[in-house]
Amino acid sequence: MQVRAAIAWKAGEPLSIGTVEIGGPKPGEVLVEIMATGICHTDAYTLSGLDPEGIFPAILGHEGAGIVREVGAGVTSLVPGDHVIPLYTPECRNCKTCLSQKSNLCTAIRGTQGKGVMPDGTTRFRCEGQDVMHYMGCSTFANFTILPEIALAKVRKDAPFEKICYIGCGVTTGIGAVINTAKVRPGENVAVFGLGGIGLNVIQGARIAGADKIIGVDLNPAREAMARRFGMTHFVNPNDVGRDKVVQAIQDLSDGGVDYSFECIGNTQVMRQALECTHRGWGTSIIIGVAAAGQEISTRPFQLVTGRNWRGTAFGGARGRTDVPKIVDWYMEGKIQIDPLITHVMPLEKINEGFDLMHAGESIRSVVVY
Amino acid sequence: MQVRAAIAWKAGEPLSIGTVEIGGPKPGEVLVEIMATGICHTDAYTLSGLDPEGIFPAILGHEGAGIVREVGAGVTSLVPGDHVIPLYTPECRNCKTCLSQKSNLCTAIRGTQGKGVMPDGTTRFRCEGQDVMHYMGCSTFANFTILPEIALAKVRKDAPFEKICYIGCGVTTGIGAVINTAKVRPGENVAVFGLGGIGLNVIQGARIAGADKIIGVDLNPAREAMARRFGMTHFVNPNDVGRDKVVQAIQDLSDGGVDYSFECIGNTQVMRQALECTHRGWGTSIIIGVAAAGQEISTRPFQLVTGRNWRGTAFGGARGRTDVPKIVDWYMEGKIQIDPLITHVMPLEKINEGFDLMHAGESIRSVVVY
Repeated sequence: MQVRAAIAWKAGEPLSIGTVEIGGPKPGEVLVEIMATGICHTDAYTLSGLDPEGIFPAILGHEGAGIVREVGAGVTSLVPGDHVIPLYTPECRNCKTCLSQKSNLCTAIRGTQGKGVMPDGTTRFRCEGQDVMHYMGCSTFANFTILPEIALAKVRKDAPFEKICYIGCGVTTGIGAVINTAKVRPGENVAVFGLGGIGLNVIQGARIAGADKIIGVDLNPAREAMARRFGMTHFVNPNDVGRDKVVQAIQDLSDGGVDYSFECIGNTQVMRQALECTHRGWGTSIIIGVAAAGQEISTRPFQLVTGRNWRGTAFGGARGRTDVPKIVDWYMEGKIQIDPLITHVMPLEKINEGFDLMHAGESIRSVVVY
Repeated sequence: MQVRAAIAWKAGEPLSIGTVEIGGPKPGEVLVEIMATGICHTDAYTLSGLDPEGIFPAILGHEGAGIVREVGAGVTSLVPGDHVIPLYTPECRNCKTCLSQKSNLCTAIRGTQGKGVMPDGTTRFRCEGQDVMHYMGCSTFANFTILPEIALAKVRKDAPFEKICYIGCGVTTGIGAVINTAKVRPGENVAVFGLGGIGLNVIQGARIAGADKIIGVDLNPAREAMARRFGMTHFVNPNDVGRDKVVQAIQDLSDGGVDYSFECIGNTQVMRQALECTHRGWGTSIIIGVAAAGQEISTRPFQLVTGRNWRGTAFGGARGRTDVPKIVDWYMEGKIQIDPLITHVMPLEKINEGFDLMHAGESIRSVVVY
């Protein structure tokens, strides 16, 4: 079967729109027609060539929504016609990690997913006579893709694809970091570093959780208005207070430090500030942003000995098949906002413009609609 | 009143045994006759001059036990004759931190304690016409000392001073790190880096908490026998497995990593190993050791994003007035061992020999008996 895709042939080059051959679903696999996909920084990171685990040629994209069209042998939880969101963090419910009930980082298909292949060790995509690799187990930059059953969250049918695709990564990552990882409680104070697509979702997660002070930090003053709309109560611009005074400014706003902070940029220097602005005795800082390869975080151990906690989160600590449908419900019920975050919608043919808008800081999220 | 004391006149010099003038207790203060005191690495660190907050002349010592001899106005919870353990981390039960119920790092007298004075800003010690400063709010290297009421834990009268003085620091720090900070549960696996006075207490804390694998790490093979006696189940000597293979050795012993690790040395490179040997998804590493001034910990943020937690603890997360009496009970009931850890007992006149034994690695704990 022929599908339309944006192919990443080589690191550092624009995606190439074309036709790709896709194989049918093998046992345990599902063929999904992707209806919409977001463009995320992680796609750009891999495409840039800086991702040491990037493999080419590949079909990128990991933030999609679509419809089940065919299921392989043994698939029991999905049928053709079901609406689904692909999960780059699957939920097998049977591995040591899933059974621990202490982490969402299911290991069932980790080995093959990292190599760009399906669990049986092969790829379903071919183009111009060569294998094309999967990406983050999703490859949503094609209008059809194959996923294991355990990597699909079934969602309600009345939810619009071009909005809920964002729940496949950014929305869940931001809201989940607050609700699943930090477990923020009413009356607590938080700081959010970086008010882009992840940070704004952290802010609305903190609002839902009943946080008191929600302090946003960004160099771009244009971010303030949108962040306030999502629930931010105080804004700190490092260019205004002085870049070396950010920690003090946040501590002054929060009676000695926030209960939780979230780093949504991927900057290791900011990660340190995020830790150090939390409250002595119990403050917890959660790293969400992905740092460049080889970079390290550091601090004085005294920061931890005096009661601060340094943690991280991936996919917002969400167990995808369990939690993603709930977040779709929250969107449909108006409990969370997504629409203002999707600043650009485009056809597949213009996907490279979506990357350009992101690099220029002009979009929060661009969505491709097939 | 004249008291006998070991005085630290200058950094880097041995303590000087002599007579010091002590003032009576002011309101809220208590005069305690110190019956025994341990010699801890922290005393040596300050005496060495490396502690940037060290003040001289001072009366060091913070691991004591004694008898209340006089109480100042307004003291309601103690009377002369009570047996007590001085607390370098007090428990006022009224400050923001105590009321948070999330940390033991009471701030009631933090400012003055760090300056070597009592809460009213003055010292109670004088010698040769000059003020002599308090140390960590305790100054147990004198046979009488003054403490605020909130910095004294009242303990049972049948407990031997020369043993329970160790509960004033090392025992509580090690056991408390497991019970209060990590909250280890039955069946979990732990690793303990450094099998000295703190590490051995971490091991017996892990045994009490029902841990399965208790992996000890030390360069000194002579530590193994004692550690096994305290509950260690596996021993890793970095010189045997290779210093760069310690993380792997621990992960091999614990099906991918331990649930909790404890750094009891103060070495920032070991702190990194302690973090990285914990299990992906939920492993927590707890820093107990005090690093040299200016040293920093570092790691790749990926370690945290994949679910590890980096934390620290001071005084084992114990609320002194509440928890220390319980640990004294545990000792008296035979639930924990202290006697084998106290390898040397000496009079005040030989206190400098206690420091020598510690530096030579020949003692676990030396105790001065007045």
